[in-house]
Amino acid sequence: MNIPQSVKWENDTILLLDQRKLPHVTEYMTLESVASVFEAIKSLAVRGAPAIGIAAAFGVALSALHHKTNDIDELKELVLMDSGYLSQSRPTAVNLFWALNRMNDVIIKTNSTKALREAVLAEALAIQAEDAEVCRSIGEHALELFQDGDRIMTICNAGSIATAKYGTALAPFFLAKERGIDLSVFACETRPVFQGARLTTWELMQAGVDVTLITDNMAAHTMKTKHISAVITGADRIAANGDSANKIGTFGLAVLAKSFGIPFYIAAPLSTFDLDTPNGDAIPIEERDPAEITHVNGLKVAPDGVSVFNPAFDVAPAELITGIVTEKGVIKPDAAAIAKLFN
Amino acid sequence: MNIPQSVKWENDTILLLDQRKLPHVTEYMTLESVASVFEAIKSLAVRGAPAIGIAAAFGVALSALHHKTNDIDELKELVLMDSGYLSQSRPTAVNLFWALNRMNDVIIKTNSTKALREAVLAEALAIQAEDAEVCRSIGEHALELFQDGDRIMTICNAGSIATAKYGTALAPFFLAKERGIDLSVFACETRPVFQGARLTTWELMQAGVDVTLITDNMAAHTMKTKHISAVITGADRIAANGDSANKIGTFGLAVLAKSFGIPFYIAAPLSTFDLDTPNGDAIPIEERDPAEITHVNGLKVAPDGVSVFNPAFDVAPAELITGIVTEKGVIKPDAAAIAKLFN
Repeated sequence: MNIPQSVKWENDTILLLDQRKLPHVTEYMTLESVASVFEAIKSLAVRGAPAIGIAAAFGVALSALHHKTNDIDELKELVLMDSGYLSQSRPTAVNLFWALNRMNDVIIKTNSTKALREAVLAEALAIQAEDAEVCRSIGEHALELFQDGDRIMTICNAGSIATAKYGTALAPFFLAKERGIDLSVFACETRPVFQGARLTTWELMQAGVDVTLITDNMAAHTMKTKHISAVITGADRIAANGDSANKIGTFGLAVLAKSFGIPFYIAAPLSTFDLDTPNGDAIPIEERDPAEITHVNGLKVAPDGVSVFNPAFDVAPAELITGIVTEKGVIKPDAAAIAKLFN
Repeated sequence: MNIPQSVKWENDTILLLDQRKLPHVTEYMTLESVASVFEAIKSLAVRGAPAIGIAAAFGVALSALHHKTNDIDELKELVLMDSGYLSQSRPTAVNLFWALNRMNDVIIKTNSTKALREAVLAEALAIQAEDAEVCRSIGEHALELFQDGDRIMTICNAGSIATAKYGTALAPFFLAKERGIDLSVFACETRPVFQGARLTTWELMQAGVDVTLITDNMAAHTMKTKHISAVITGADRIAANGDSANKIGTFGLAVLAKSFGIPFYIAAPLSTFDLDTPNGDAIPIEERDPAEITHVNGLKVAPDGVSVFNPAFDVAPAELITGIVTEKGVIKPDAAAIAKLFN
């Protein structure tokens, strides 16, 4: 089964799936320099917090390989500088800093150039392998929530290509396919950027998962007439009380799911929880460029000068969430259960 | 105030707003022949059931003007033939047949060529004036439901350019603007065909009404954070029990409105009620071309070969509808109140 991966380490280079060209062209860029990794992250060739972190970690591995000095202090300084440079490629990506901090910790501890070069590559591969394992665990736990023949709705792309492999919300569909369990997916196209239409359908089709594309405003009618069994989405940030921020449209799906009496699940690793954020009201909602809404593929779909409201995320409140699927199992979305995850 | 109209009779020709070119170009086509009216209806230059009926009625007036015979029997036959021809321009449009039947009744009763030519034009103008009056009445009744400062959400284009003038769901906004009452509109873009983005925003901006465009999946977050006061939409068909079919997405807005405790209104003329349809389950839901979803402006947004579900309409059940605004006033969406409308 072909489960697409967005970042691969091969022959001392990074192969990076150019997500900007999906679904029209499946093209892996070969990145051989720190600068090209920086540019790939900055230009959104790679997206998805874990995938960005992994790409940056391999970027540090490239740095260590390419600086030819045999002076360990000089090499440390050069590689740490490159790491700092990579951290500026997308300053709002928390996973980027997390991955680069792990790399920096490893760099600092080495005491030979050979050890440094080996250690940074090993650490980058470990970050990738750990993320794949976390996602696979999420998929295993999510799969227990579904039954053969279920029809499940999702939005955006909480998928394999946003992570090391498997994804979060999409992970159970790959595992089900591997095991001959029949799950059908209804993918909301996810305006304004069409991550559902462009990425989720493509990714599931690569693996032979049964997926049907709908526009976001078809969710209610589809839940009713196609007898949707459950909704599962990823999350960008989960507050201490279980309120979950995710791609715009998630909140509406949670309300609809409740109205139809079907479960609504969030799938996310522990790293998504932010215990310093007490609840959803404390999560800032980024507003993005109006042109994302007024233009599609560079062509206008709305009048010049129209007022636009373009929030990138919304918050599904804990009371609408049936369960949060983590690598440690499925928990109830409440402060006690979440606190227990971290004890 | 500029309230756009899609069909005007001027200097013995039809001026027809080419809605296919909106919002980029505001262009009125001059239609001087029955064939050009047929083509305009068929090619969707004019849309909206009342507007289509009005265009066809004026098409019959053109027919009577252009056939130069002085034989009343021959003229009747020629004009009735043209009327029959026009009825084939969009065979699923009920309003088209209704308007042409009214024209045919007038044609049959005349007994001179001069009387026929005068009568068909008078009848077409009457159909137009009556529709404008119906829409204005709907607007008056809807306006009573709103208060200065209200923020109201709508979907699709139940607007002036879909009718003779004013529209149905949009009528109160024009009347409010005329009277200095401050209403803000949040227009859902209405995938897949973008009637909200292309038409509703344009139409309201022409009249100086405050309108903000959102994508359909932003409805829940917008209701919550922008403190939406009410939702109002048009309807394509209203069953005897009040279940209302309208553009896909309407059902979802009705569920969200209920969840937020805000009223959800349908605005529609009596001609939209179909007492032979007992409830929403009896309303067939047309499924349209997958390319409407997979392509925007002719460019792909989804993988080749993806499965698509593309229902054009959905049904807001009566229990989610706060009131139906008609030209005779606002009624509760139940069988007794609807039956009473027609007694």
